[in-house]
Amino acid sequence: MKVLNDKYYMQLALELAAGAEGQTGINPIVGCVIVKNGNIVGMGAHLKRGEGHAEVHALAMAGEKARGATAYVTLEPCSHHGHTPPCANRLIDAGVAKVVVAATDPNPQVSGRGLQRLFDNGIVVVSGVLQEQAERMNEKFNKYITTGMPYVTLKTASTLDGKIAARTGDSRWVTGPVAREQVHTLRHRHQGIMVGIETVIADDPSLTTRTATPGLHPVRIVADSMLRLPLTAKVVSDRTARTIILTTDNSDAAKRAQLEEAGVEVLTCGSGPHIDLTVAMELLGRLEIGSILLEGGGRLNGAMLENELIDKVILYYAAKIVGGPVGAFTFPGMERMADAVRLRDVEVDMAGEDIRVVGYPVYSSGTR
Amino acid sequence: MKVLNDKYYMQLALELAAGAEGQTGINPIVGCVIVKNGNIVGMGAHLKRGEGHAEVHALAMAGEKARGATAYVTLEPCSHHGHTPPCANRLIDAGVAKVVVAATDPNPQVSGRGLQRLFDNGIVVVSGVLQEQAERMNEKFNKYITTGMPYVTLKTASTLDGKIAARTGDSRWVTGPVAREQVHTLRHRHQGIMVGIETVIADDPSLTTRTATPGLHPVRIVADSMLRLPLTAKVVSDRTARTIILTTDNSDAAKRAQLEEAGVEVLTCGSGPHIDLTVAMELLGRLEIGSILLEGGGRLNGAMLENELIDKVILYYAAKIVGGPVGAFTFPGMERMADAVRLRDVEVDMAGEDIRVVGYPVYSSGTR
Repeated sequence: MKVLNDKYYMQLALELAAGAEGQTGINPIVGCVIVKNGNIVGMGAHLKRGEGHAEVHALAMAGEKARGATAYVTLEPCSHHGHTPPCANRLIDAGVAKVVVAATDPNPQVSGRGLQRLFDNGIVVVSGVLQEQAERMNEKFNKYITTGMPYVTLKTASTLDGKIAARTGDSRWVTGPVAREQVHTLRHRHQGIMVGIETVIADDPSLTTRTATPGLHPVRIVADSMLRLPLTAKVVSDRTARTIILTTDNSDAAKRAQLEEAGVEVLTCGSGPHIDLTVAMELLGRLEIGSILLEGGGRLNGAMLENELIDKVILYYAAKIVGGPVGAFTFPGMERMADAVRLRDVEVDMAGEDIRVVGYPVYSSGTR
Repeated sequence: MKVLNDKYYMQLALELAAGAEGQTGINPIVGCVIVKNGNIVGMGAHLKRGEGHAEVHALAMAGEKARGATAYVTLEPCSHHGHTPPCANRLIDAGVAKVVVAATDPNPQVSGRGLQRLFDNGIVVVSGVLQEQAERMNEKFNKYITTGMPYVTLKTASTLDGKIAARTGDSRWVTGPVAREQVHTLRHRHQGIMVGIETVIADDPSLTTRTATPGLHPVRIVADSMLRLPLTAKVVSDRTARTIILTTDNSDAAKRAQLEEAGVEVLTCGSGPHIDLTVAMELLGRLEIGSILLEGGGRLNGAMLENELIDKVILYYAAKIVGGPVGAFTFPGMERMADAVRLRDVEVDMAGEDIRVVGYPVYSSGTR
């Protein structure tokens, strides 16, 4: 049973924030709960980029009751004028007596300034309550805001021998309905979804979010160095969501014009025979795509891993063995077992009848 | 907290049995507890083939107190004269009033006869207490006694992308110390350990049981169709345990003579270019090897799976990704994902920092 303390209210604020995951674009998810004399008097979450921050909604609900109250906020209140006035000032103006914060702003250039402004105005400030949980919740935001590169979550669905399809390419289905429902929820929670051209040619996927209640469709991103994408492919023709093609300088200009004519955006990622994936991520970041769900075939997954561009992996394993050559990661591989890409903070659980492994790659370059 | 009832004593009897797993050869593991008026008066387990059954040890401990007592036995008492007189008769002669049994004899030709004899002699008989647990405990025995074929447990240690070595073949180490300690305990619990010649040539393993307290070494079995096994290999030269080579009619007679001279047994398994693995299992069964731990490379694992000879899999996964071509199962694979070999009764847990998946293959032929 949860007992009444700072964590009690912060947990609620975290849950308000989590509910909005996927709908704030490159903005963080944030929740706020305002409490006075044992009563919750305001609640809010940041719902959409360009609209009110969590504190604004919660203060509006609290009205005059905010005076002398305690505000629980999952992320340090902002101190700069963005789309909205700074939340630190709003809390000061509303007369709150105390502010409890989970995580500070991950951007080192602004971190701590919001708390300092509150403190300078005589507000009691407590920081670090459920900090780890709050930081993990915004892991996608935290990378994007500090590097400008999208946070990449790799998802695979393979057999226990690591195959994502039978030898003929048949892959319907590897995992069960519970895992598939989770994957569509992951699509809702990412701004982009990325596959290789081989996947599009083989399966003609729509790459949309199909959930029990309507979800948000991510931007569809296809790695296609030679621009082999058929104009009849669903990602080109269905107009259900935005589509971006990654290619190189070497691809056919006429085909590029046809694709653009059909409403597809084309990004040039280097001039080599293959797409420069690091350049691709930089360009996508500039387009304000802050998070990508990578659902590649083995070659794209392997290349993204080799380029140290994968931040998180969510690996589903169906309890079966299928054999054949179609692995989840196809790349030359490491020379020594000791050089393998290790995962940190590994969690293992069941997704229906399938096994789910979640972790964070640790690259030998040590840059992440 | 465990409460005093039939399951209480049967659980103890199962634990007595489990302690002896690995040391009874092709015999089942069996435990017996004798209880009179709330006091345990006798305990026993079958420890070694050719020596006393569990009931004999427990009755010896109980002495005169067995008269009017209840005997808990994990496996139906035998009714036939084998290496020792039938235990059903021993229980009758000792004057026990009641016999509680977990599992009946799996051999359909004898199943129930022991219970019938007890019943015919006025003893109260209860059967099926903790039956599933007792049956699983003797899964190796149950297959061997009904088919004459060894029970094969496949063990793999792979990365999350299903690789058992880096691209160079380097495999030290895939999994951590907890998993490796478990594997050596599995060796103790199987009569044979089987690898392919590629593994012997690459790693020159001793295939012995190396545990914190001394364990039993399984018979070492090497699949080697061309008799490429070097005479200097540890499995030939170290004389630590018995070694059996599986080969075909086509292999070199002179090399065979050399190996036999060196003390290695050689079995001819068919006349094709490859070993007939089904024939191999039949021959090993005739040599009274009732259980085999398969620690193959990808090709042997794949071939054993294709031949539907694997009864159980214990798959360890280290939380890392290494890439390359060296998979845990190397075989052409199924045409459709729906044809994959499914596992039943899957259990997932952690072995130290590694993930352990245990299950039982369900073959499409449906014969197992």
